Amino acid sequence: MKKGFRVALREVVRPSSFFRIHVRACRRFQSPFTPAKHALFAYSTVSKSRHSASVASRLLGATLVVACGITTLVLYPPVVYADAPIQSEGSLGRKIRLHEVKKHGQSAETKWITKGTRVYDITEWIPGHPGGEVILRGVGGAVDQYWNIFTIHKKQEVYDILESYYIGDIDLRDLVNGQVPAENVDDPFKSDPKRHGDLTVHSERPFNAETSTEELNKFLTSLDAFYVRNHLWVPRLDEFKHSLIVEMPNGEEKVYMLKDLKEKFEALKITATLQCSGNRRRHMTSEARSTNGLQWNVGGISTATWTGVRLRDVLADAGFPVDDWPDDVKHAQFMGAEAYGASIPIDKATDKRGDVILAYEMNGKPLPPDHGYPIRVLVPGNVAARSVKWINRIVLSDEESNSQWQRRDYKCFGPNVGGNPDWDSAPAIQEMPVQSAITSLRDISPNSQQDNKLLQVYGLEEDSIVVEGYAYSGGGRRIVRVDVSSDGGRSWQQAELLPNEAKGAKSWAWERWRWVLPRQSAGRCFVVKAVDEAYNSQPDNYEPTYNVRGNLTSAWHRVGYRPE
Amino acid sequence: MKKGFRVALREVVRPSSFFRIHVRACRRFQSPFTPAKHALFAYSTVSKSRHSASVASRLLGATLVVACGITTLVLYPPVVYADAPIQSEGSLGRKIRLHEVKKHGQSAETKWITKGTRVYDITEWIPGHPGGEVILRGVGGAVDQYWNIFTIHKKQEVYDILESYYIGDIDLRDLVNGQVPAENVDDPFKSDPKRHGDLTVHSERPFNAETSTEELNKFLTSLDAFYVRNHLWVPRLDEFKHSLIVEMPNGEEKVYMLKDLKEKFEALKITATLQCSGNRRRHMTSEARSTNGLQWNVGGISTATWTGVRLRDVLADAGFPVDDWPDDVKHAQFMGAEAYGASIPIDKATDKRGDVILAYEMNGKPLPPDHGYPIRVLVPGNVAARSVKWINRIVLSDEESNSQWQRRDYKCFGPNVGGNPDWDSAPAIQEMPVQSAITSLRDISPNSQQDNKLLQVYGLEEDSIVVEGYAYSGGGRRIVRVDVSSDGGRSWQQAELLPNEAKGAKSWAWERWRWVLPRQSAGRCFVVKAVDEAYNSQPDNYEPTYNVRGNLTSAWHRVGYRPE
Repeated sequence: MKKGFRVALREVVRPSSFFRIHVRACRRFQSPFTPAKHALFAYSTVSKSRHSASVASRLLGATLVVACGITTLVLYPPVVYADAPIQSEGSLGRKIRLHEVKKHGQSAETKWITKGTRVYDITEWIPGHPGGEVILRGVGGAVDQYWNIFTIHKKQEVYDILESYYIGDIDLRDLVNGQVPAENVDDPFKSDPKRHGDLTVHSERPFNAETSTEELNKFLTSLDAFYVRNHLWVPRLDEFKHSLIVEMPNGEEKVYMLKDLKEKFEALKITATLQCSGNRRRHMTSEARSTNGLQWNVGGISTATWTGVRLRDVLADAGFPVDDWPDDVKHAQFMGAEAYGASIPIDKATDKRGDVILAYEMNGKPLPPDHGYPIRVLVPGNVAARSVKWINRIVLSDEESNSQWQRRDYKCFGPNVGGNPDWDSAPAIQEMPVQSAITSLRDISPNSQQDNKLLQVYGLEEDSIVVEGYAYSGGGRRIVRVDVSSDGGRSWQQAELLPNEAKGAKSWAWERWRWVLPRQSAGRCFVVKAVDEAYNSQPDNYEPTYNVRGNLTSAWHRVGYRPE
Repeated sequence: MKKGFRVALREVVRPSSFFRIHVRACRRFQSPFTPAKHALFAYSTVSKSRHSASVASRLLGATLVVACGITTLVLYPPVVYADAPIQSEGSLGRKIRLHEVKKHGQSAETKWITKGTRVYDITEWIPGHPGGEVILRGVGGAVDQYWNIFTIHKKQEVYDILESYYIGDIDLRDLVNGQVPAENVDDPFKSDPKRHGDLTVHSERPFNAETSTEELNKFLTSLDAFYVRNHLWVPRLDEFKHSLIVEMPNGEEKVYMLKDLKEKFEALKITATLQCSGNRRRHMTSEARSTNGLQWNVGGISTATWTGVRLRDVLADAGFPVDDWPDDVKHAQFMGAEAYGASIPIDKATDKRGDVILAYEMNGKPLPPDHGYPIRVLVPGNVAARSVKWINRIVLSDEESNSQWQRRDYKCFGPNVGGNPDWDSAPAIQEMPVQSAITSLRDISPNSQQDNKLLQVYGLEEDSIVVEGYAYSGGGRRIVRVDVSSDGGRSWQQAELLPNEAKGAKSWAWERWRWVLPRQSAGRCFVVKAVDEAYNSQPDNYEPTYNVRGNLTSAWHRVGYRPE
């Protein structure tokens, strides 16, 4: 598509202008669209035009935007809207067998879905779907299981849109106890890999699991033991077929295969810690009040040395002026092949010392499927949710990613704000605050030969305690001090920061620390708190930073001790 | 001096090689130098060769390094050392009148000083003085007053060095009660300007004063009311004569007059808050334990819009590769005309979005004498101590500034570390942690016309309270939330962030905030705590971050309230 036409199209399909055109068209034909539906349709149609997942579908999508959004409405208003029951669950349509639904799958000309016991022909909605092509996973069957994953659908405007495509009800002969039997519902997680590692599993579908205590005591985490935070299923991709599209602000696109990236750009290694915003959420729940979300202990965090190419170099190659970009480009959006999406500020994406890379190796081995094979973005210093796995599209935009993970889930509010906040009132979490935890507390004795070696290093000859853990801060801020206490925080000493060989322009990796003290001088409650190079410190309890989502739990970590 | 020779000279005068040469020379002539003195002499001599304050003196200094350091020792060891009493205060020298001392001032060939009642000929020491030319201020008279300002002198090695230049004692006829009369002691602060502003003075000499409560309630602080933190006297400079020397890592120098800077480089405006590391120290003292240093309340902080040229541009013009510098260049050192010195990491100095400027205007007017006239460096996001005033030399180096303000004073240690810490165990403070304070708390009533206007904005019709203050974080991290409480922190609400027109690539300026609440719903203890964009928060009390120096006090600010 020629650039001039693209830009013109972009102008036409701005949400605001499209909204006006759409409202006018619907008024003309007495469409039953509500204002909210107009807005959503306009918004999502344009959204689709910006986010569609391939060159081909983009071309198709952009055409469909105009075709479906205007011409279709003009030519066939009764078909699309007049039959649709609005905000009612009456049975006005015909009875449809499940085998008939199945025929309207991905390869069919018209695409149907079921939700509950109702059937919808969503063919015309597909190009307008804000989530992109992921909607195709559901066609020819039930979408309930996806609706539960993509919770952003659970609002009236979306139900309204869906109802406008209603065509009938599932035939009673196909229902068991009034429901579609489980064997007829597609499993979104059928492509997930088998896991072998020493992980503590919090949820199987999507798979979420934290690193074991033993692995937390190493500077680099083994691949099998690296914590997994999946929001959706694991896409099975082939590095020789998988492509990455970079979309410029003017809509121009450049396509890279992994092979291209490796050949064209300098490879570099960055040692970085990834941490879930929910790490240590369990502590906030137990020491303050209940929180929503997976109840991570201290293992929602791991560290690896990642190999990849600079995002900055790739953007420059794609034609973006990485040292002097236009003011209206503010974000780099990342889309994953499974439908996850997030974004980071453009200055982080282009900062030479920001070390954002497109990573294809972890600790010298290809990324495992759970960690983004064949390629993911690594945004060191930021919450792990921005290091999008299975990345297949990068969009430079004036807007943040529209995903629920950018606009909702990874946000943090005041202690007084409940579960239904004004989402826009807080920025998406990017850098994280200073954090630390105790990961090991063990008695050692001079009677053991191995223990004795360690005791000698610290000039001790008596029964002692070894306390170890990690300390980390966001934004590449180095940990400058780790304060430890064995009496609940009444008195402090400084732990030893253990040497490591982290690579990168800033301190993107945690520090491992150790404290060895004679057993007889130890109190009954060990505590750790860390200080980063901006001298930020951790809160001493969980109330002041309490938030319903339990994000960014970073109060002092306390661990009780009872001698053997 | 040719570059090749300079580099060769630099090799010769590395502290380590010079130390060896010096030890050998002294052994040869049985000099009474102790190993500590060898080290200090070698170190400070080299230091001088790197830091001397002008091209001419550098040339002279470098020559003297070799001449004095080796030849002089070889030719005249008995003159310099043999007569000097070491670590004794006996009266072995001759009696000297004060008018005779006075003759050996700045313009004399040989330069004398007095300390206590003893007289020293320090002519040969001058090129080796680590503090550079500031030593000339004292010659021809007493140095006791300087010794008290530059506390780094108060250690045995320095007394030893001084004693090696002893030549006699002040004649008893010139002493009153065994001391030099005050009128014979030069006033280091004689050039300080008169102050008119609404400032709360903490010390007159050097002048240190904080911004008044009223001025803290404005987004931009008036020049007269901007807090003043002087470490020494105020040098009286002339913008048409004052020069700035930029010294490259290879020793090459480039000289800029203010006029050159204005003509050659693009001017830009940066709105930035400067904060003393001791701001709110008084609170730590009163709520935890005693701390050393000026007892600042909430006014060791102010904000201005600064005009200047990018340090990055000037360094590039001087020949420094600002986008790809050699690994061994790690710091940009700044020297002030009065002898103050500090440094910042090279990546901050060269970061285009770091906004470090050489500033010559404040709120659109030339810098006042107390704030660095004619030119200062402004390092937004960092502790104000790095924004060196009256700057006359920039050195790009592998080392931090050697000043006491870099290596000692502006550091922060754990709560358990006393007043004599291992100074090298903590990094110099650069970025500061998130901070906030209440600066105004007042009753308003609908009976007052002016108050009523404000009440209407907040939809209130009853007697109310207006609470206002500031919130700030280091590193350009934006304040994203200000939590306020009127019941001592049991319950919270969010304050309104007031609009402002700050200029700069990041959030270098404080946010002013406001909270209006009905009087009858108010408790008796107002509290504020802020959250920055990395979601760092403030500690709720002063014990966990207590340090003897009282630096970086940032616990929740609590203010009691009693209704009128």
